[in-house]
Amino acid sequence: MGQGNFTPAYIVVPEGSITTPKGFSAGGLHCGLKKAERHDLGAIVCEVPANAAGVYTTNVFQAAPIQVTRASIEAGGVLRAIIVNSGNANACTGKQGEADAYEMRNKFAEAIHVPIEHVAVASTGVIGELLKMDRVRGGIAELPARLSSTYEAADDFCQSILTTDLVKKEVCVSVTVDGKEVHIAGASKGSGMIHPNMATMLGFVTTDAAIGSEALHRLLRKATDLTFNMITVDGDTSTNDMLVAMASGLAENEELNEAHSDWAAFAEGLRYVCEVLAKAIARDGEGATKLVEVQVRGAVTDEAGQAIAKTVIGSSLVKSAIFGADANWGRIIAAVGRAGQPVNPETVDIRLGDIVTLSQSRPVAFDEEAALAYLKGDTVIIHVDLHMGEGTATAWGCDLTYDYVRINAAYRT
Amino acid sequence: MGQGNFTPAYIVVPEGSITTPKGFSAGGLHCGLKKAERHDLGAIVCEVPANAAGVYTTNVFQAAPIQVTRASIEAGGVLRAIIVNSGNANACTGKQGEADAYEMRNKFAEAIHVPIEHVAVASTGVIGELLKMDRVRGGIAELPARLSSTYEAADDFCQSILTTDLVKKEVCVSVTVDGKEVHIAGASKGSGMIHPNMATMLGFVTTDAAIGSEALHRLLRKATDLTFNMITVDGDTSTNDMLVAMASGLAENEELNEAHSDWAAFAEGLRYVCEVLAKAIARDGEGATKLVEVQVRGAVTDEAGQAIAKTVIGSSLVKSAIFGADANWGRIIAAVGRAGQPVNPETVDIRLGDIVTLSQSRPVAFDEEAALAYLKGDTVIIHVDLHMGEGTATAWGCDLTYDYVRINAAYRT
Repeated sequence: MGQGNFTPAYIVVPEGSITTPKGFSAGGLHCGLKKAERHDLGAIVCEVPANAAGVYTTNVFQAAPIQVTRASIEAGGVLRAIIVNSGNANACTGKQGEADAYEMRNKFAEAIHVPIEHVAVASTGVIGELLKMDRVRGGIAELPARLSSTYEAADDFCQSILTTDLVKKEVCVSVTVDGKEVHIAGASKGSGMIHPNMATMLGFVTTDAAIGSEALHRLLRKATDLTFNMITVDGDTSTNDMLVAMASGLAENEELNEAHSDWAAFAEGLRYVCEVLAKAIARDGEGATKLVEVQVRGAVTDEAGQAIAKTVIGSSLVKSAIFGADANWGRIIAAVGRAGQPVNPETVDIRLGDIVTLSQSRPVAFDEEAALAYLKGDTVIIHVDLHMGEGTATAWGCDLTYDYVRINAAYRT
Repeated sequence: MGQGNFTPAYIVVPEGSITTPKGFSAGGLHCGLKKAERHDLGAIVCEVPANAAGVYTTNVFQAAPIQVTRASIEAGGVLRAIIVNSGNANACTGKQGEADAYEMRNKFAEAIHVPIEHVAVASTGVIGELLKMDRVRGGIAELPARLSSTYEAADDFCQSILTTDLVKKEVCVSVTVDGKEVHIAGASKGSGMIHPNMATMLGFVTTDAAIGSEALHRLLRKATDLTFNMITVDGDTSTNDMLVAMASGLAENEELNEAHSDWAAFAEGLRYVCEVLAKAIARDGEGATKLVEVQVRGAVTDEAGQAIAKTVIGSSLVKSAIFGADANWGRIIAAVGRAGQPVNPETVDIRLGDIVTLSQSRPVAFDEEAALAYLKGDTVIIHVDLHMGEGTATAWGCDLTYDYVRINAAYRT
């Protein structure tokens, strides 16, 4: 994962958000789905039909809004808007839940005067309870007046999609395509029930690039595999995960595809946006005190490296040790060894930051105080080199803390 | 898993232990590997060469004692003794660790006057530190004088193999074979780093039945798959897991094999011994306040049911909810849906004990107070019926608590 080893093709836009790309507005408000007086209904709207692509949870139980979004995008590959609620996942809610998700879509389409199949729906929150539709309807009636392309309106949207998240997640970059400035922005939420296999969170990407929905889908899927699918908080894959991208085309570049000379630059920008959002979710994992990154090198293939990186980042024992700032590399190697991938038990190196703890599978005496200081930082990088091949991978997660247990022991109450 | 639906072929022996089967003695003492004044070196000895079988961790990094035990059992299929230390896993310790494990074996063989390849070795504790061999040698010199077939000596052994365990684990049953009373007994340890894929713990089974080492191995593997491989505490598979069975033959039955009319009774007794030990490990999971059992029915195959049961029992979100006595069945169904097995999203029933929470994938209104009272008990049974086929499975685990984090945030210190 060579980021940092070359000059990136993208520039991060300070104070950029999902409304920075041309054509997008957003907004959010409190309609009453959350007990606290926090935003719980929001929308992103594009002033023109945007080419759209989505990737969804692999969980067998897909929540009603996923069916609706899939139906909308499949109808014509374009979206004008996406409406999102937090506080209730509208999952395992049967025919009524499905009807409610379609009503959310249709009512919001009517409110902003666009065809119903140009609207997508996303939900996040408690599973198995029906949406309080009177509150949703009230919110939908108010929402159009709140839409704006200001940073504050984008902020309202970012707030409206959060559940146990402590911070909002957003990023915006610019990339030069055909000599024109193209923006790619994203917002996401996610804190618990986070695990590979798509997205395990809600993510929204806006861009003003001209790109067809199928090309956008290919890029989105590839970026997802390297970013959202490489994070884990707790190994649980939600019923509601969804990542939707909308491209307004208002930057007026030549339509992007694999033959375009700026395709790689755009792809890199999109991957970076997804990486920032994915890392932000990992860092904001329920109860987390720090971001943990696992970098694997020397695996037989990238896929083998990914499986190993995910096993290490998902180990409750590794995560607890990092919370305790304990340089317990034995748990790291135990996780490497149970990942089900080719590993030579004689050739493994492990570093915590710059501190070598294992070389060629043999313990190396290290400065415990330096290790303690490193592990107490807000970012911990675990390097694993297998010395077997050229495969590399990076995964992100967080530590396992008392607060994770506290948050999840009483989530419904 | 029909236990309880028929009259068992075995009788539980009150105050039975690993020294109840004829021919076995045991003992344990503190030699100085643990900081606290707790037993950390023990042995089981058989007065005749016992037919022996072992199953081992699937972790790529297998600790030195596993190599030694494998070598001993492969040499001739018989054992006279197994020596065990706790406090240090002797894993990832290189050539010196290997030499130390062989020295443990050879010194103890010499001390009890048996051939070196008639002794097996097991270790559990911290990874990556060399054994303090002076202390081990001192312990080995004292150990023979402590060996006895009394219940107290068996207790000393059971204590000597514990690490973060809060309680010892032992059980003994009797089975009638050829009209003779045959005993099968077991002792185990395990609390953290517990996950399927063998055995993620140390387990020792003694029996006075006459049974060849290959037949014993077949039975042991089958029993392991249904018991030790169906428990999880934290999803981490250790480098040191080992289950060893020794059969003295002193009950003087006709040698047991598949053609013997009492083969099924003996197999049932062995499976029961393994199940008791496995459940005891799950209940004593690090920080656990209760045993959680997941019973899956109606899966397309037993294997599919096992995968689903293990996914539910391993979910940090489900485990946290049970700690909080929160009837959050949404997390159970989310885990069922991500297990990667065939599931019809329209036909799932979920019960917590007798409390139906989901029927045909639709929420059922239930008495929250009754659910709270049930979930506050010391055993929680989650029933999942998929209504797809005849496959069944049972898995065991525990809740995820503040104490799990506390224990694992500072294990080395």
